[in-house]
Amino acid sequence: MSGVLYVVGTGPGNAGQMTPEALSAVAAATEFFGYGPYLDRLSLRPDQRRIASDNREELDRAQAALTRAAAGEKVCVVSGGDPGVFAMAAAVCEAIDKGPAEWRQVELVVTPGVTAMLAVAARIGAPLGHDFCAISLSDNLKPWDVITRRLRLMAEAGMVIALYNPISKARPWQLGEAFSLLREVLPGTVPVIFGRAAGRPDERLLVMPLAEADANRADMATCVIIGSPETRIVAREGQSDLVYTPRFYAGGNT
Amino acid sequence: MSGVLYVVGTGPGNAGQMTPEALSAVAAATEFFGYGPYLDRLSLRPDQRRIASDNREELDRAQAALTRAAAGEKVCVVSGGDPGVFAMAAAVCEAIDKGPAEWRQVELVVTPGVTAMLAVAARIGAPLGHDFCAISLSDNLKPWDVITRRLRLMAEAGMVIALYNPISKARPWQLGEAFSLLREVLPGTVPVIFGRAAGRPDERLLVMPLAEADANRADMATCVIIGSPETRIVAREGQSDLVYTPRFYAGGNT
Repeated sequence: MSGVLYVVGTGPGNAGQMTPEALSAVAAATEFFGYGPYLDRLSLRPDQRRIASDNREELDRAQAALTRAAAGEKVCVVSGGDPGVFAMAAAVCEAIDKGPAEWRQVELVVTPGVTAMLAVAARIGAPLGHDFCAISLSDNLKPWDVITRRLRLMAEAGMVIALYNPISKARPWQLGEAFSLLREVLPGTVPVIFGRAAGRPDERLLVMPLAEADANRADMATCVIIGSPETRIVAREGQSDLVYTPRFYAGGNT
Repeated sequence: MSGVLYVVGTGPGNAGQMTPEALSAVAAATEFFGYGPYLDRLSLRPDQRRIASDNREELDRAQAALTRAAAGEKVCVVSGGDPGVFAMAAAVCEAIDKGPAEWRQVELVVTPGVTAMLAVAARIGAPLGHDFCAISLSDNLKPWDVITRRLRLMAEAGMVIALYNPISKARPWQLGEAFSLLREVLPGTVPVIFGRAAGRPDERLLVMPLAEADANRADMATCVIIGSPETRIVAREGQSDLVYTPRFYAGGNT
C-alpha cells in the first residue's frame, strides 16, 4: 500500500508567486519535510505534521519522506523556488534510484514553481530574454575547476549567466573569483544584477558593471545574474533602470 | 498621466500553474494585448478589451501596448509560460529602449511565471537538478552559426540543454541538425526528453536516447531537454520512468 510523495516549490517566498497546484498539493498532504524557513511559508493545519531539518541534509530528508510515503502516507517535501532547480526533486529521484524497490512504487508528484532567477529577472526587466544558463556556485557538489571551466565556456558562448548559491559562510571567496575569471572573457561594462529576496518585503536589487562587481553585495538569499555582451540598460527618470537582453542577436563580441 | 503596463505569464497553460500575482494583474487591467491562444487562457470580463495579434508581431504588440499605457490606461501584455524567457518582457523593454521619452514614464510590472522547461522537468523527474541552459533554436532571431557554436560549447561544458522554439513550419530542419551536432560531442546514451504541452490535457512526454532522437517527434508546443552525461534514468514498474540529473557531479566524460 503505497502513498503519495508530493514535491512542491513555494516560489521565491511571496505568497502571490506560489501556484494553486502547489497549494492543492500542500492541502492534500499530512506530513511535511523541509528546511524550516521553507516550511514556515506554509499555513499548515493542526492535523498536518511538520518535520523540519537543516538546509544541507537533502538526501536524508528525501529518504525519510520516501519511507513514510512507502508506508502509505501522503507526504510533502518542500523546496523554496522551483523544486526541480538545484533543489529537492533531484534529491528525491536520487534516493529512489539508490533506495529499496518499494520506493519505486510510490506515486511521485512534482509541482513546478517560480525559480529565483525568474523572479529577479521580472523585477529588473528582462535579462533572461535570450539564451541563458543557471549554474550553482557551490563547490560542495562539484569540483571548483568544473565550475570555472563552465563559467568560462558560458561567457565565451555569450550566454547570460544566473548564479545560484553564490556565497555562504563556508564558501566566502568563490563569487569574487568567479567575477575575476569572467572579467577575463567579458567586457567590464556587462551589467551584473544582485537580486536578493525578489518579491519579498526585504527585497534588494542592485545593478553594477562587471568591472566593479563586488562579491560582498551578495548573501545566501541572492541570485546573481551576469549579462551577456548583448544585455542593455535602459535609464528611466523617476523609475528604476531596466536591464534586458534583446530577442535579436546584434553580434556583440562573443 | 501615465498608466500601468503589466506583463504577465500564464504558465504552461494549466490554470493551476498560473500564479495569484499574475491573476491579480489580469484583474486590474482593462486592455489585453497578446497572441490569441494565450489570451484565450484568461477569463476576461465584458469590460476588458482584447486585442489579439499574430505570434510573431512581438515588437508591434509591445509598441501598441505602451502607447495605450502612456495614454493612462491599465494595459496587460500576455505571454505563455514566463514572460521573461524568450517572450514579451524583452520585447517591451526593447520598445521602451527605442521609443519616445514618455514610454519611460510608464509604470512597468512584470509578473514571473512557470516557464516550459520547469513544467516539463517536473513531469519527468528532475532533469534540471544541476547546471543547465536554455537556448532558443529559432534562427529568425540569431544566425544559425551562433546557435551551433552555443550548442557545442554547452555540450562540452556538460550542461543540460533546454531547447525552446525547436521547430516550426518555416524552420523544419534545425532540430535534426542540432541533434546531429550534439551526437558529435555527447554520448549517444544521453536521454532526450520531448515535453509537449506539459500539464495540459494534450500533454505528451517522450524520452529517447540521443542516438535515436527523432526531430519529427517535436512540434511548436514542445520543449526539448537534452541531458548531460551525468543525467540518469530510473525505471519504475507500474510507473513512468524518471529522468534526473544528480546534485553531485560524479565526473562523467565532460
